[in-house]
Amino acid sequence: MIKPRLFTPGPTDVPPEVLIEMAKPIFHHRTERFRKMLAAVNASLKKLLMTGNDVLTLAGSGTCGMEAAIACAVPRDRKVLVANGGKFGERWGKVARAYGLDVDEVKLQWGTALEPETVRQKLSSGDYGAVVVVHSETSTATACDLQAIGEVVAGTDAILLADCITSAGALPLRTDEWHVDVVAAGSQKAFMLPPGLAFVAVSEKAWKNVESIKAPAFYLDLAAYRKALAGNDMPYTAPVSLIRGLKVSLEMIHEVGIEKIWTRTACLARATRAAAEALGMKVFSQRPSDSVTAILYPQGVGDEFRKQLREKYGCSVAGGQDELKGRAFRVSHMGYVDPLDALGLIAAVEYTLADLGVQVHLGAGVTAAMEVLKDWQ
Amino acid sequence: MIKPRLFTPGPTDVPPEVLIEMAKPIFHHRTERFRKMLAAVNASLKKLLMTGNDVLTLAGSGTCGMEAAIACAVPRDRKVLVANGGKFGERWGKVARAYGLDVDEVKLQWGTALEPETVRQKLSSGDYGAVVVVHSETSTATACDLQAIGEVVAGTDAILLADCITSAGALPLRTDEWHVDVVAAGSQKAFMLPPGLAFVAVSEKAWKNVESIKAPAFYLDLAAYRKALAGNDMPYTAPVSLIRGLKVSLEMIHEVGIEKIWTRTACLARATRAAAEALGMKVFSQRPSDSVTAILYPQGVGDEFRKQLREKYGCSVAGGQDELKGRAFRVSHMGYVDPLDALGLIAAVEYTLADLGVQVHLGAGVTAAMEVLKDWQ
Repeated sequence: MIKPRLFTPGPTDVPPEVLIEMAKPIFHHRTERFRKMLAAVNASLKKLLMTGNDVLTLAGSGTCGMEAAIACAVPRDRKVLVANGGKFGERWGKVARAYGLDVDEVKLQWGTALEPETVRQKLSSGDYGAVVVVHSETSTATACDLQAIGEVVAGTDAILLADCITSAGALPLRTDEWHVDVVAAGSQKAFMLPPGLAFVAVSEKAWKNVESIKAPAFYLDLAAYRKALAGNDMPYTAPVSLIRGLKVSLEMIHEVGIEKIWTRTACLARATRAAAEALGMKVFSQRPSDSVTAILYPQGVGDEFRKQLREKYGCSVAGGQDELKGRAFRVSHMGYVDPLDALGLIAAVEYTLADLGVQVHLGAGVTAAMEVLKDWQ
Repeated sequence: MIKPRLFTPGPTDVPPEVLIEMAKPIFHHRTERFRKMLAAVNASLKKLLMTGNDVLTLAGSGTCGMEAAIACAVPRDRKVLVANGGKFGERWGKVARAYGLDVDEVKLQWGTALEPETVRQKLSSGDYGAVVVVHSETSTATACDLQAIGEVVAGTDAILLADCITSAGALPLRTDEWHVDVVAAGSQKAFMLPPGLAFVAVSEKAWKNVESIKAPAFYLDLAAYRKALAGNDMPYTAPVSLIRGLKVSLEMIHEVGIEKIWTRTACLARATRAAAEALGMKVFSQRPSDSVTAILYPQGVGDEFRKQLREKYGCSVAGGQDELKGRAFRVSHMGYVDPLDALGLIAAVEYTLADLGVQVHLGAGVTAAMEVLKDWQ
């Protein structure tokens, strides 16, 4: 049998322990049992995101969480700086405009990241109420220096909203220490869960905005989630199965330790980049994220690569979007993936390249990756 | 997370499709629904074992199936030839003696197989009613030439009983064409199921014995299973969940095709042997089975190897038994295992050897295996 293996940068593989937990019978959410579970989950999420503030859990995708933050926390009468370095940065500009905000979009070349210096210059030259960045841009597999950007924004009265959907739980992220006012994350990435939950952490500075803004929002009203969470509850029908799965996955994550997971994820990413190089392929990004890697196809290879990789070797990876369409494939290093998975994928990549007529020294990529992964622990 | 990976020669990994099927609600076995299911399973098993005779399914381990065959089909007043080339051959001698049979045991050096010529000589020099052989001896990872032995026995009035527990569904096995009178198999090997079921195929020649022998058996009485199966039923309480899982796993097997699975299994075995050699290790058997490989540890390495392999890399393999205890590890190629699994295990073996101070060129084993596995299809 060919085993299906998921290396897409969301959704990612879910451990059997979590799948089994989610298969258990439904119970009602307006109960002490549910409130106890949500309290535990909230504590676990705070630990993961390294924040003293509550982490709101919404039933929805990552976009749902980011939109709630933009809708509720971005001041209406001032400009909002949005970094657009890929599909997701572009999306947050669209969302901000949908709420009638005055968007100043910094268009970045794909594969580059927003520079802290750019933020400093912008904020000192105009009246900005908020800065929206993507910590790890999934479409280009590029990470920005969120810590440095946080430092810049913290010196102003603007707030920093970070799309951490493809970074939380994978890349170093210290929400409070780095002064990130809003962190939005999604369940289907490093949280080892199916899609369906968004997480939003909000600083005191950002909550002040929420309190003063009358947002055209009901389901996405962060204040409603905060109010409910004060009683360990959710304002609308809670996705009970996903949350019980989340409780288990967070326990698994904390058993390893979040900082250790960052190190491991980075090691998987380095190994994958080393393999790509050893196979004569180029990593697309100039500032590669460690949670996802975009690799440019060699000359003469296109998206038939992904089809062959999936159909013959069982490995699903993502393709390129927009300007990377048909030019690259993207591999996740998030969540429930270990070195043997990563090596297996690299072997499958080698076979697929050979199948498509690319000259490959079978084993060269795996050997390069093994050298890096010997430090994984 | 380190993923647990099962490479023991039974139990083997079970596909999610089968696990999910077995997790479905229990239904009663004295129903048309059950009988319909068992009829389908019987047809599937006949196809897998390449026999026109019914395949009896017993709730029990492989030993349960072999014992039923020995108890019910081996004539009482004549000698029984038992090949003992390892733990399982040894066991069948013990079973035969437990039923008061006159056992002529051929003791083989571990790692060698019973020669057809030996069988010919024995059968022509004495009054034998049955020959008991192990097709693939799990303890030594050695396969015999069952087809040639079948040809020898077919020319006599003795019957041939074969322990095919670690061969059925993995190694070429053509029950009727090869004149194997009794084939016994177990669910936890190439059938991609948990332990709990034994399968016994019985030829017309062997049924004649069963009819004339009054065996001291009730639960193990093959005649009871045959009678029940004539009505698509089982004589005692049927393990409904295992059988519904079996129906699905057999469908998965036949979707690929049993002969293709033989080829694939052999390819995995060849790749593993090539990797062992490339890493300076020796395969133990002089006539290696393709369903399981026994590899001798290098100088200075003992069973701490298996502990490290499991604890640090998540891979479970079996150790050696008796004279191989502490000297070798054994790897299964049966059932739900694909090339990327096999390569992952080899990578883990390389890391573990290096951890234990053996000089290893990281990637050498994987590279050798990849060269072989490029022909897997």
